[in-house]
Amino acid sequence: MNNYFIGIDIGGTNTDIGLVDTNGHVIGRQRISTQTFTDKESYVAAMAEGIRTLMQTHGASHTASIGIGAPNSNFFEGCIEAGTANLPIKERIPLKEMMERIFNVPVVVDNDANAAAYGEMIYGGGRGMRHLITITLGTGIGSGIIVDGRLVHGHTGNAGELGHSIVMPHGRPCGCGRRGCIETYASAHGICQNYVEAAEEAGRPLSVAERKALTCQQVGEAARQGDPIACRAYEITAQWLGIALANAANFSAPEAIFLMGGPTRAGEALLQPLRKAFEENLLFLYKNKISIRLSELDGNDAAILGAAAIGRMER
Amino acid sequence: MNNYFIGIDIGGTNTDIGLVDTNGHVIGRQRISTQTFTDKESYVAAMAEGIRTLMQTHGASHTASIGIGAPNSNFFEGCIEAGTANLPIKERIPLKEMMERIFNVPVVVDNDANAAAYGEMIYGGGRGMRHLITITLGTGIGSGIIVDGRLVHGHTGNAGELGHSIVMPHGRPCGCGRRGCIETYASAHGICQNYVEAAEEAGRPLSVAERKALTCQQVGEAARQGDPIACRAYEITAQWLGIALANAANFSAPEAIFLMGGPTRAGEALLQPLRKAFEENLLFLYKNKISIRLSELDGNDAAILGAAAIGRMER
Repeated sequence: MNNYFIGIDIGGTNTDIGLVDTNGHVIGRQRISTQTFTDKESYVAAMAEGIRTLMQTHGASHTASIGIGAPNSNFFEGCIEAGTANLPIKERIPLKEMMERIFNVPVVVDNDANAAAYGEMIYGGGRGMRHLITITLGTGIGSGIIVDGRLVHGHTGNAGELGHSIVMPHGRPCGCGRRGCIETYASAHGICQNYVEAAEEAGRPLSVAERKALTCQQVGEAARQGDPIACRAYEITAQWLGIALANAANFSAPEAIFLMGGPTRAGEALLQPLRKAFEENLLFLYKNKISIRLSELDGNDAAILGAAAIGRMER
Repeated sequence: MNNYFIGIDIGGTNTDIGLVDTNGHVIGRQRISTQTFTDKESYVAAMAEGIRTLMQTHGASHTASIGIGAPNSNFFEGCIEAGTANLPIKERIPLKEMMERIFNVPVVVDNDANAAAYGEMIYGGGRGMRHLITITLGTGIGSGIIVDGRLVHGHTGNAGELGHSIVMPHGRPCGCGRRGCIETYASAHGICQNYVEAAEEAGRPLSVAERKALTCQQVGEAARQGDPIACRAYEITAQWLGIALANAANFSAPEAIFLMGGPTRAGEALLQPLRKAFEENLLFLYKNKISIRLSELDGNDAAILGAAAIGRMER
């Protein structure tokens, strides 16, 4: 008998429900609009309906577990906290309790960065590893840390915020209110700022209008095509990220650090200088022992696979 | 029946063996000279003899486990690696294997920083905690990290080198060959250098002879007595250490960070500015949730208690 797992990825716009088989294939999907719901009861009922539809469609009589990746979630309590930005529902949503009552199977709720890390270990390039870190580059920088096969939640439940490691005291201002976080140098916005600096270095400063219109996707695309300013922007990114990842290595000495997210589509323009900067900044004990790799979870399925994976967490 | 545990602290000069009871009291000690031994067989035989003498003297018929804190040790293999500096024995010493053959009880070998962390959790201020970090300030900076009740060894076995977190790119040169490690700002030598800077700031630069003669102990003593330059030196120390510890918090969000080692004897001259700098540099998620504390292991017994504690590690 095949075992099925449900993975749910809650985003501000859509809630994606996936039916995943034992081999990590997403064999069916249902999408509901997150914005439609303003109370937890109707939202959870819609999710439950989506799950039932999926299972009937694919002849799955049973799901072994349900994993939910959600913003502003509390792993210990299995809920989405009250007042979550981007969600129309402003009350606390005790997802674990509500879903377990309906389906009578284990339900795990965690943030999407942790789900990504666990998904990498169960279904992606981290299969067979016990120690890994995943870094998601995007609007911000998210991270998930696995030590000895288990996600690090810490005493507070929300450990693993490597995006807010300070790499430069008194450095660039960060959205968190502090300065010099790696997020300010290696997020999509940080990479754009690196491009602005690189253009200045090259004696070709951008106009205000050009700066405003600049996107990280453009910088990545230009870097892939060998544009020297864009490549230099990624080199600056890599120099900062190399320090942050070398510091992370001191902590848990993982087997690999996986990168995902839009900016990684620059590929070798990021990876090559990053691996160099990482090794240069790495403590001698770890040199040539930790690999920097791209996520092997298919971008389209990554969030659902991550969610399905955390449902399978050892209890 | 009382249970007894053996803790062995291997140093370059002495090897201290302690008999520890269930309540964490060191009820007996034996000391052998590490430097006397140049081959592993006679060294291990002397340790075994020391253990037997201790047990007979104190009427302990049985030891539940043996924990050994040792330099350059390999936790996974339970050995001291070949070619260890400071030890006269240059061959690999498979301590776990040799001692288990003699005593037929579980033997655990780990480095002293990890032993200190585990000791803090089992016998010190960390009792009842599942997430903590210990930082030992001294010639260098050692650290031990406990996540969910377990020591972080990482994929390579030697994770937890927070002393080599880079807090200032291109900063002070470190003994590890890189620059800007927290060790260069907050080790005994780093604190002396902070004193030199503070004296310059105050318009009272030290002579070459004064610099040479300066010790961290003097700086600590002067700070305890309110000397403004020494206090400023500790303030500089705290500013750097505050960043490093705030970055560590992003990783594992521990319940507490414990400090030990000679420089901590400066007491409030270190703790007060450190707590301030830590909170200022802490990500908002963790503010006022992580305490900075001095180790509660008695300095004289700390190494033996740490060693005894790792012998009791969950297997």
